[in-house]
Amino acid sequence: MLYVRHGHLRFVPHMCELSFYNEMIYWGLEGSHLDYCCQRRLDDRMSETFTYYAAEEPNGGPEGKGRRPPGPEGRKWLERMRRTFEEPTSSVAAQVLATVSILFVIVSMVVLCASTLPEWRAPENRSVEEQSRIIEAICIGWFTAECIVRFIVSKNKCEFVRRPLNIIDLLAITPYYISVLMTVFTGENSQLQRAGVTLRVLRMMRIFWVIKLARHFIGLQTLGLTLKRCYREMVMLLVFICVAMAIFSALSQLLENGLDLGTKNKDYASIPAACWWVIISMTTVGYGDMCPITVPGRILGGICVVSGIVLLALPITFIYHSFVQCYHELKFRSARYSRSLSAEFLN
Amino acid sequence: MLYVRHGHLRFVPHMCELSFYNEMIYWGLEGSHLDYCCQRRLDDRMSETFTYYAAEEPNGGPEGKGRRPPGPEGRKWLERMRRTFEEPTSSVAAQVLATVSILFVIVSMVVLCASTLPEWRAPENRSVEEQSRIIEAICIGWFTAECIVRFIVSKNKCEFVRRPLNIIDLLAITPYYISVLMTVFTGENSQLQRAGVTLRVLRMMRIFWVIKLARHFIGLQTLGLTLKRCYREMVMLLVFICVAMAIFSALSQLLENGLDLGTKNKDYASIPAACWWVIISMTTVGYGDMCPITVPGRILGGICVVSGIVLLALPITFIYHSFVQCYHELKFRSARYSRSLSAEFLN
Amino acid sequence: MLYVRHGHLRFVPHMCELSFYNEMIYWGLEGSHLDYCCQRRLDDRMSETFTYYAAEEPNGGPEGKGRRPPGPEGRKWLERMRRTFEEPTSSVAAQVLATVSILFVIVSMVVLCASTLPEWRAPENRSVEEQSRIIEAICIGWFTAECIVRFIVSKNKCEFVRRPLNIIDLLAITPYYISVLMTVFTGENSQLQRAGVTLRVLRMMRIFWVIKLARHFIGLQTLGLTLKRCYREMVMLLVFICVAMAIFSALSQLLENGLDLGTKNKDYASIPAACWWVIISMTTVGYGDMCPITVPGRILGGICVVSGIVLLALPITFIYHSFVQCYHELKFRSARYSRSLSAEFLN
Amino acid sequence: MLYVRHGHLRFVPHMCELSFYNEMIYWGLEGSHLDYCCQRRLDDRMSETFTYYAAEEPNGGPEGKGRRPPGPEGRKWLERMRRTFEEPTSSVAAQVLATVSILFVIVSMVVLCASTLPEWRAPENRSVEEQSRIIEAICIGWFTAECIVRFIVSKNKCEFVRRPLNIIDLLAITPYYISVLMTVFTGENSQLQRAGVTLRVLRMMRIFWVIKLARHFIGLQTLGLTLKRCYREMVMLLVFICVAMAIFSALSQLLENGLDLGTKNKDYASIPAACWWVIISMTTVGYGDMCPITVPGRILGGICVVSGIVLLALPITFIYHSFVQCYHELKFRSARYSRSLSAEFLN
Repeated sequence: MLYVRHGHLRFVPHMCELSFYNEMIYWGLEGSHLDYCCQRRLDDRMSETFTYYAAEEPNGGPEGKGRRPPGPEGRKWLERMRRTFEEPTSSVAAQVLATVSILFVIVSMVVLCASTLPEWRAPENRSVEEQSRIIEAICIGWFTAECIVRFIVSKNKCEFVRRPLNIIDLLAITPYYISVLMTVFTGENSQLQRAGVTLRVLRMMRIFWVIKLARHFIGLQTLGLTLKRCYREMVMLLVFICVAMAIFSALSQLLENGLDLGTKNKDYASIPAACWWVIISMTTVGYGDMCPITVPGRILGGICVVSGIVLLALPITFIYHSFVQCYHELKFRSARYSRSLSAEFLN
Repeated sequence: MLYVRHGHLRFVPHMCELSFYNEMIYWGLEGSHLDYCCQRRLDDRMSETFTYYAAEEPNGGPEGKGRRPPGPEGRKWLERMRRTFEEPTSSVAAQVLATVSILFVIVSMVVLCASTLPEWRAPENRSVEEQSRIIEAICIGWFTAECIVRFIVSKNKCEFVRRPLNIIDLLAITPYYISVLMTVFTGENSQLQRAGVTLRVLRMMRIFWVIKLARHFIGLQTLGLTLKRCYREMVMLLVFICVAMAIFSALSQLLENGLDLGTKNKDYASIPAACWWVIISMTTVGYGDMCPITVPGRILGGICVVSGIVLLALPITFIYHSFVQCYHELKFRSARYSRSLSAEFLN
Repeated sequence: MLYVRHGHLRFVPHMCELSFYNEMIYWGLEGSHLDYCCQRRLDDRMSETFTYYAAEEPNGGPEGKGRRPPGPEGRKWLERMRRTFEEPTSSVAAQVLATVSILFVIVSMVVLCASTLPEWRAPENRSVEEQSRIIEAICIGWFTAECIVRFIVSKNKCEFVRRPLNIIDLLAITPYYISVLMTVFTGENSQLQRAGVTLRVLRMMRIFWVIKLARHFIGLQTLGLTLKRCYREMVMLLVFICVAMAIFSALSQLLENGLDLGTKNKDYASIPAACWWVIISMTTVGYGDMCPITVPGRILGGICVVSGIVLLALPITFIYHSFVQCYHELKFRSARYSRSLSAEFLN
Repeated sequence: MLYVRHGHLRFVPHMCELSFYNEMIYWGLEGSHLDYCCQRRLDDRMSETFTYYAAEEPNGGPEGKGRRPPGPEGRKWLERMRRTFEEPTSSVAAQVLATVSILFVIVSMVVLCASTLPEWRAPENRSVEEQSRIIEAICIGWFTAECIVRFIVSKNKCEFVRRPLNIIDLLAITPYYISVLMTVFTGENSQLQRAGVTLRVLRMMRIFWVIKLARHFIGLQTLGLTLKRCYREMVMLLVFICVAMAIFSALSQLLENGLDLGTKNKDYASIPAACWWVIISMTTVGYGDMCPITVPGRILGGICVVSGIVLLALPITFIYHSFVQCYHELKFRSARYSRSLSAEFLN
């Protein structure tokens, strides 16, 4: 089929390169399976398309900077700086920067996880705790610096603030400063229960630093883009789960607890309690902390489980298809950046 | 491939727009990927097709009103009323109405769920219970009114009564009135055990109000349409599960309990009891309330689980494909309504 | 795409109707989406193809009798009898026969299941047990008669004996007679432990009567045909599971029990015991009767579960595709029989 | 679609046979569905392609020996020996050799598994243990011999050492000799705890002999090739799991243990402990050894499980597609070897 269109490619100049590319990735073919001339033409077309798309939806992916502004490029250094920070594959310096950034994220995650270990909180590990604090301060310092530099070198300050990844950066950094401020004002050893809980919550917010990895992993970007495009399917999934949960939890509560047939199953005392059983059964997790014991309850349980498998899988198939599409789009775009990088080296 | 047909679209006037549309949605393309002229032609054709289909199977989706009756439209107000109630995207008033209806459903669900909580039923919450009753009465009043208005404005009374969504409405409302009648006749505090159980069952029937959401969520309509079209595959799924349950439960009962080899596993005392284990294992839920302990029983368990994964997944794949098809058909139809709405605004 | 070929269908008389049909079922189209003339031509071609296929592999499906022998059909009554017994959709009598047969299977299954209930075996239910015996005798009598008639009217006795469904029939009936013989010779109340176990095993063999339903449900036939065609993928699945079980059970036994690090997990005392944990984890059942408690054991557990999901799903995808193919082939063939039935009525 | 290209196949000599073949396997067609002439041409082309591919990536599959060196073939006996050992389908001797090899692997696995059974290690089974040692020695002798012969007859010693299957062979054999050496030096009954653990670890390494089966099962080779090609998707899967585990374990630890709301769930004392719950929930295993008991913890649990189902399935779809592709490539290649074998018989 691709070859029929391949043939047409030569004659029909206004052919749709997007659908062609879609089919290519669908059949698992790569550019190298095309003849060289057609391959180049496809690449050119795709570049134009993506430039066009990027102009249309500038917040779509991480960046939409494929198009070089045709005007004067006076502040070349700032532009290079921007590329170094925003496009991990654009230069060697950018790659080093990206690696350091990933390392900082991993280190801060490991420290956060380790700090909850009981052995870690023992009195004899006082010095270790001190060190972990210093590491955290260094990490947050790096993240703050990175964020500020990124803001300074960004072309469009207003657009910068609205980008999802930058909002996440801000939300990830802020809690640390709030918690520092709180500690300063209320004192380290304040016995205020409420403040202690708030501090712990703020501290745990640090876990969202892990989302900063999305800047460097195409998989996570794909996931984000998929979620954005599939919000309709997500809502569908949510509606399915809610409706099924409402029906099955009410019925199971009735059958297991409400009918007073000999044994009352205390686990199903209320509908919200039964909801936990329904979601755990429908997703086929089945912890076994609650399970039906009456015969009608078990029949309902079987129906609930089978419906759950069917119901959950249906909207997910849409999400799959969208994910495959997003992945190939992002991979193509990132490949173009790498190519332009190697071209830079040659020139 | 689409472009080959695109080309043919211009020359072959009797081309099948349905299969074309199917391929478009399969490849994830939207109308905007087509040239403008072809896009318009496709839209026109699709409208005709769906009108034709709607004429053929008027109970298929929520409504089959795509075709305007060519005869005199004297009772225009009634027609507008009907559209307001039946097509949530047809006007602003219809959208408000739909939102109110959804809110009433959600409120009544929350009250129903909360009313089973132990804290709620405590003696000190007497007043809260009173309020919940009033809320329920308001909800049921709204639903009844909605149902009656809908019946009055419907064009074809006979067809109206046969529509699945209206039958559900009726079934959802009736139990409330029956329970009110029963309370009136037997008295609130009647100690009759039987009457109490019946009342609780009737009360719990209220949970099916949640299916009223299907009027407003395309996902639930798709689900309903899929179930209707895939009844054959549903029967297949049922037969597979029943046959597998019969074989595996009998064998597991034999191996775990019947052979008298040292230990008798009391959980597998009878085949119906073993059925619960089989369904929970085949669906990979695995609560762990029963599990085989003998070596042959465990080997059978492994076979049962693997067969279950294969068996359950086979008919579900058919259901998936049907679901995707139904979803796109319904989305297309609803998109046409929205477009006619915006056209209405412009004119 | 189908239309391009549709176009070609008119000009290229040696086009492959099989691949065309494959694509039609893939896109979810039915014959009614084709123009009438093409639809008829496709049907004709498909009939020829299936006749040809049936001639090639006469044991493939339940029957390969699509082709009428061109020779003299003197024993017409026998032929009609044969069709009545072998093709449930061939006539009204055949349908009645099929329904009765299904009912007998269901009744015998219910009796078998109920007979293992503890209440059933209580001394006061002596008469019920007697009745269940009579029901079983009637069922087995019917099955035996059906089997014998089927053998008598079959055209090719030798081929008849080799058909899978007939072998299952024989295997399902034999144990009953053996158990009757054993009871006669050893006496009902013989305290011989060994004989009792054998009797119970023979009795439980009755559960395989349920496979007789395959004659009447296209889903079960599809399953059988799929298993037959996918034996290679089944072996692959088996090899994957065995290899993964060997590796993970050995490693988990080592990490949880073999290393003597503080706590020895008694559940993982030997590799065969660990195998049960591996299969239950890889299939994501997770009963929870055994689970790792050491840190390296839990890391291995996580790897085992994720590998299991990937490994099990890979060969199953092949089985899916084959199942879809088989289903449509059998549905097509059965539709042809029904059509010939209605044609019979008209003539 | 294939027929359109079929038509083009006759006219366009530089058509891509790979994409054609891909579509054929996608639609489930086999070579026999093609006209004979086209079938032969496809086969010829595919052979060339694979030869070409094999020349490009000689470590890709088991061997890339499709192309016979055009130079002098003086050492014909060595070449035949090499084929006997490397290509199980190349001759009868090779098949016998392969069968013996598989048997040795299975025997050694059974002995290894049995040796961990408690009954086996009882004092009265001293002689059985002796026999198992002898069997292991024979197995390892065979494997060593096989490996050495294979090395001697290999054409390119350097390339031989770098092949994955040979590296596995080496890694599987070495531990045995190390453990023998250790036993000789430290003595059988040395009470050194450390040495005992090391010996047990080395002994358990024997389980990797099972990977030697990959030489003889196309499924395992496909798996290996898939893993090699999909390393990018594997990394994506890993990143998804790690990010989700970090976020959900931190939040669940906070909600279940950190907030001090009435009950502290001791199971979620630290983030690493919560990680075990997260991975077991996300994969829907659900052992039930830990599960949330607070309401916010259970809501998080539900979100975690649903996200897990979505997240895990997304990268796996890529792996599926790659697996299907690899499987058909390897099956095609192995079919060519078998054909050349039968051709050898005829000449």
